[in-house]
Amino acid sequence: MIDRLIEKIEKTHAPIVVGLDPMMNYIPEHIQQKAFAEYGETLEGAAEAIWQFNKEIVDNTFDLIPAVKPQIAMYEQFGIPGMQAYKKTVDYCHEKGLVVIGDIKRGDIGSTSAAYAAGHIGRVNVGSKTYTPIGEDFVTVNPYLGTDGVKPFVDVCKEEKKGLFILVKTSNSSSGEFQDRLIDGKPLYELVGEKVAEWGADCMGSRYSYIGAVVGATYPEMGKVLRKIMPKSFILVPGYGAQGGKGADLVHFFNEDGLGAIVNSSRGIIAAYKQEAYAKFGEAHFAEASRAAVEAMVEDIDSALQNRK
Amino acid sequence: MIDRLIEKIEKTHAPIVVGLDPMMNYIPEHIQQKAFAEYGETLEGAAEAIWQFNKEIVDNTFDLIPAVKPQIAMYEQFGIPGMQAYKKTVDYCHEKGLVVIGDIKRGDIGSTSAAYAAGHIGRVNVGSKTYTPIGEDFVTVNPYLGTDGVKPFVDVCKEEKKGLFILVKTSNSSSGEFQDRLIDGKPLYELVGEKVAEWGADCMGSRYSYIGAVVGATYPEMGKVLRKIMPKSFILVPGYGAQGGKGADLVHFFNEDGLGAIVNSSRGIIAAYKQEAYAKFGEAHFAEASRAAVEAMVEDIDSALQNRK
Repeated sequence: MIDRLIEKIEKTHAPIVVGLDPMMNYIPEHIQQKAFAEYGETLEGAAEAIWQFNKEIVDNTFDLIPAVKPQIAMYEQFGIPGMQAYKKTVDYCHEKGLVVIGDIKRGDIGSTSAAYAAGHIGRVNVGSKTYTPIGEDFVTVNPYLGTDGVKPFVDVCKEEKKGLFILVKTSNSSSGEFQDRLIDGKPLYELVGEKVAEWGADCMGSRYSYIGAVVGATYPEMGKVLRKIMPKSFILVPGYGAQGGKGADLVHFFNEDGLGAIVNSSRGIIAAYKQEAYAKFGEAHFAEASRAAVEAMVEDIDSALQNRK
Repeated sequence: MIDRLIEKIEKTHAPIVVGLDPMMNYIPEHIQQKAFAEYGETLEGAAEAIWQFNKEIVDNTFDLIPAVKPQIAMYEQFGIPGMQAYKKTVDYCHEKGLVVIGDIKRGDIGSTSAAYAAGHIGRVNVGSKTYTPIGEDFVTVNPYLGTDGVKPFVDVCKEEKKGLFILVKTSNSSSGEFQDRLIDGKPLYELVGEKVAEWGADCMGSRYSYIGAVVGATYPEMGKVLRKIMPKSFILVPGYGAQGGKGADLVHFFNEDGLGAIVNSSRGIIAAYKQEAYAKFGEAHFAEASRAAVEAMVEDIDSALQNRK
């Protein structure tokens, strides 16, 4: 799957991923009203609004991008109907040829991590039958429990040719509280980064490992260090745009081959129509605003990478 | 909710929680066959088997115990039908008067943690209506992202009178890989424990804070230290029984008042019928074996606590 992601990045010239984090206040009024008219102001109605919103954004951007990253919390908060909208989104993005990174940040002890891995990126057996319950291509994983919490995910990736992005240094402002603390003179995130490189060493695609890392765009200096610690790991970089990261901050997340990183933007793309720069599209054409925002983001990162050389 | 949990612990004299982690190989053949006859060998069939298994265990133990802890991964692995079985289990345990601790180990940055919190222990708005999508009483939370990942859960607890158990020192064998690393001479788990005490300080029930911690039974010495660092936090203690913890190991997780800890057993209770000690019940009476295992566990912990005095 890492090879497919790279192939798609090279084809689109867009090392970016669109974060499908459909908060209700991003969803235009007309979509909400239509969904509520059909399903009432219910969890099903909310799920339908999310799904229609996602579909229109995907329809307007899929040819420009390699991947999407649905944030499962935004679906899970609406209970079972929300989870159905998540699954529908994953399936639809696959139909459109996109790589799907499930932002699930799961992590537990052995057999429990194995269950998460089976459900999200693997298969489960029921009697004599086998099913793919959710079916993302990559998922994000929390490393706090150590190797035996991560290993079951790695094992499933090996079998299924899927991949992981393991939280190393997150984009939020208090991420340093534990992640930056010094251990033998090195911050915890560096130790986690070393482990990611170790876990990923025997999980190589043709150029990169399918065991990647999450490092926030909001910490470019740390990104530079982590890039060197994990030379063969793809880095998923959240925090671009709305959280403050800019293209110029991001060049050091990439290797000299122009690969090795994929930058996520959620709000900056899916709620672009709310920004002054894209206000001309109006709420009715919100997905065209998203398309324009994708083009601007690709251009921003591309020119930053060009200027680096 | 912490007051209700304490009240139930005092009433049952059982500081224990039954872990509803229904792995398929724990579920007796006759339950699987009945579910598959009705729903086929499908995800729905697996979910039905889980639900019937849980129901029988709850029916046979609810009067002896204060709380249950469903492990969401074991449901989530069966996709949407699995999540429906999870929700059904939560609701049924509430009908039976049990406190429900959702073992979800979620944790993300601000607005995303807020979405998880709303979905699991809070409420969501849809238009003019408000819903409780899942409705556990407590959930487990992963602290790796720091205060702004945990705070949204705490805020929802304050509003809704719910509670948390934050991962401090997990029961698995490689938990030390990051959690035990020394920072200014102190292991990371102690720093996290200090934060739990701090987060919980203004979240007091009548005797204990509703912001608790998870500390594995497999690390009794660390439990002793953490008990002192977080004197007002309830400790959820996994790892009893099948993972190796014994009653005598657990006394230092409790305060002098005999409270402050709640010990989880999953496999040891729900798959008791597979142990030699309970083999006499047979697979057909698996839930009676679970009841006997609960009684033995309560007795084991009680006598350990008595001998301490």
